[in-house]
Amino acid sequence: MTGKVICAGLGPGDPDLMSLRAARAIAGAHHVAYFRKAGRAGQARRIVEGMLSPSAVEYPMEYPVTTELPFDSPEYTDALARFYDDWADRLAALAATEEVLVLCEGDPFFYGSFMHLHSRLQGRVPVEVIPGITGMTGCWNATDMPITWGDDVLTVLMGTLSEEDLVRHMEHSDALVVMKTGRNLPRVRRALERTGRLDSAWLVERGTMPGQRVARLTEVDPHDVPYFAIVLVHGHGRRPEIAE
Amino acid sequence: MTGKVICAGLGPGDPDLMSLRAARAIAGAHHVAYFRKAGRAGQARRIVEGMLSPSAVEYPMEYPVTTELPFDSPEYTDALARFYDDWADRLAALAATEEVLVLCEGDPFFYGSFMHLHSRLQGRVPVEVIPGITGMTGCWNATDMPITWGDDVLTVLMGTLSEEDLVRHMEHSDALVVMKTGRNLPRVRRALERTGRLDSAWLVERGTMPGQRVARLTEVDPHDVPYFAIVLVHGHGRRPEIAE
Ligand SMILES: C[S@@+](CC[C@H](N)C(=O)[O-])C[C@H]1O[C@@H](n2cnc3c(N)ncnc32)[C@H](O)[C@@H]1O
Ligand SMILES: C[S@@+](CC[C@H](N)C(=O)[O-])C[C@H]1O[C@@H](n2cnc3c(N)ncnc32)[C@H](O)[C@@H]1O
Repeated sequence: MTGKVICAGLGPGDPDLMSLRAARAIAGAHHVAYFRKAGRAGQARRIVEGMLSPSAVEYPMEYPVTTELPFDSPEYTDALARFYDDWADRLAALAATEEVLVLCEGDPFFYGSFMHLHSRLQGRVPVEVIPGITGMTGCWNATDMPITWGDDVLTVLMGTLSEEDLVRHMEHSDALVVMKTGRNLPRVRRALERTGRLDSAWLVERGTMPGQRVARLTEVDPHDVPYFAIVLVHGHGRRPEIAE
Repeated sequence: MTGKVICAGLGPGDPDLMSLRAARAIAGAHHVAYFRKAGRAGQARRIVEGMLSPSAVEYPMEYPVTTELPFDSPEYTDALARFYDDWADRLAALAATEEVLVLCEGDPFFYGSFMHLHSRLQGRVPVEVIPGITGMTGCWNATDMPITWGDDVLTVLMGTLSEEDLVRHMEHSDALVVMKTGRNLPRVRRALERTGRLDSAWLVERGTMPGQRVARLTEVDPHDVPYFAIVLVHGHGRRPEIAE
């Protein structure tokens, strides 16, 4: 008998927004792995609270501690590569005979950490991915306004980009999503201001999760924003939508 | 007693990929509305086949027939506006006392037709939207490759844009999604070629639906593509993903 690795996308945070397929995989799982920071519960694990079988074995995959290393140092990058190597080996060994479920926030293939395991598992064990609603989709729904219509162009940016890169992309797009804001928010805010988009920008913190907050970006203290936060600028439709 | 309008995002096509909340709303609905072209079953209706209560009343909202009118003529735009006005009135009247479920492919707020009803219903009856997995998310999952990682920039384009617009955006983005391809595919293909992206482009037809097809765009006849088709160019990560 051979096993496999299944990665379930959990959606933006509200457990009720996960897919029927993901919910079934979670309820039936015997081995459940998920990323988390050391000493934290982990967002993915929190989403499935109450849904796991009491006999499920859990494998928290704790990111290497980083307090002494800068995020972009070669040492940190090395430590992270070894961490992914190590967990790919452990999951591959387990999946030789068992089905192993990996939990992933949002959609696994959209800026997800799972891809670092996915690439390392190729050719070793079967890997199956269950799509999920992305965090950004949960966030624009939280604003109760369409993010795009008609011929709008939507650009998804990471707050980790340089101010010049952010400006260049913001200038040319109708609708905007900026992820990984957190401590990058002051720079993101400056880029929005330089491109005349600040007044139409929204910040969604913890979209669809407990403690969700939706506010105009101008009304937010850019130095006090959680990890789960997304900046949105809605499109206005380049021309009326027409049915094809 | 007052009712409301609930719009359920159904996800990319596979009924197993809809959310728990959407599935519950569908099973319990007494009044179910959905868009379709005259004479067609309608994709949204097809996704929920077998899930509706036998006593549910159905309201197919048939787009005005367009054979004699060009899509971008003022006459056609007028006919479409009257069509949306009319259905907003009918749904608002029904929702004065009843709960009315509107079915929508993918996520309703992402290039969805529902927004034309959503804007017309504001202030008249309560409207609730249930997010869904977008068609593009279903499509990049069908390729079994991450669409984005690290600092990748993702741009979502409509195939209805001009070739110059397409080229300008394709030049500056890492990952690409092009929707509404259909008969626009030859132009999209030329723009990809001009920007050196053609060889890495994929076409996903009917992602997660029966008859799904995933192929390199170079291997596809650009004149023979269905309405449900998306062009994808995967990002390669601007730098290694680092945990924050
Ligand atoms: C590494 S990415 C993971 C994205 C995930 N795979 C997805 O599909 O959404 C993490 C970033 O997603 C954003 N994010 C994800 N879910 C969110 C939510 N529910 N509310 C606000 N931001 C969210 C935040 O910007 C965060 O920095
Ligand atoms: C008017 S938009 C609706 C988008 C929808 N609200 C969503 O969230 O995906 C229709 C376009 O979506 C794309 N599309 C949606 N679902 C798809 C699927 N399952 N496979 C391929 N293309 C799809 C096609 O490009 C189509 O032209």
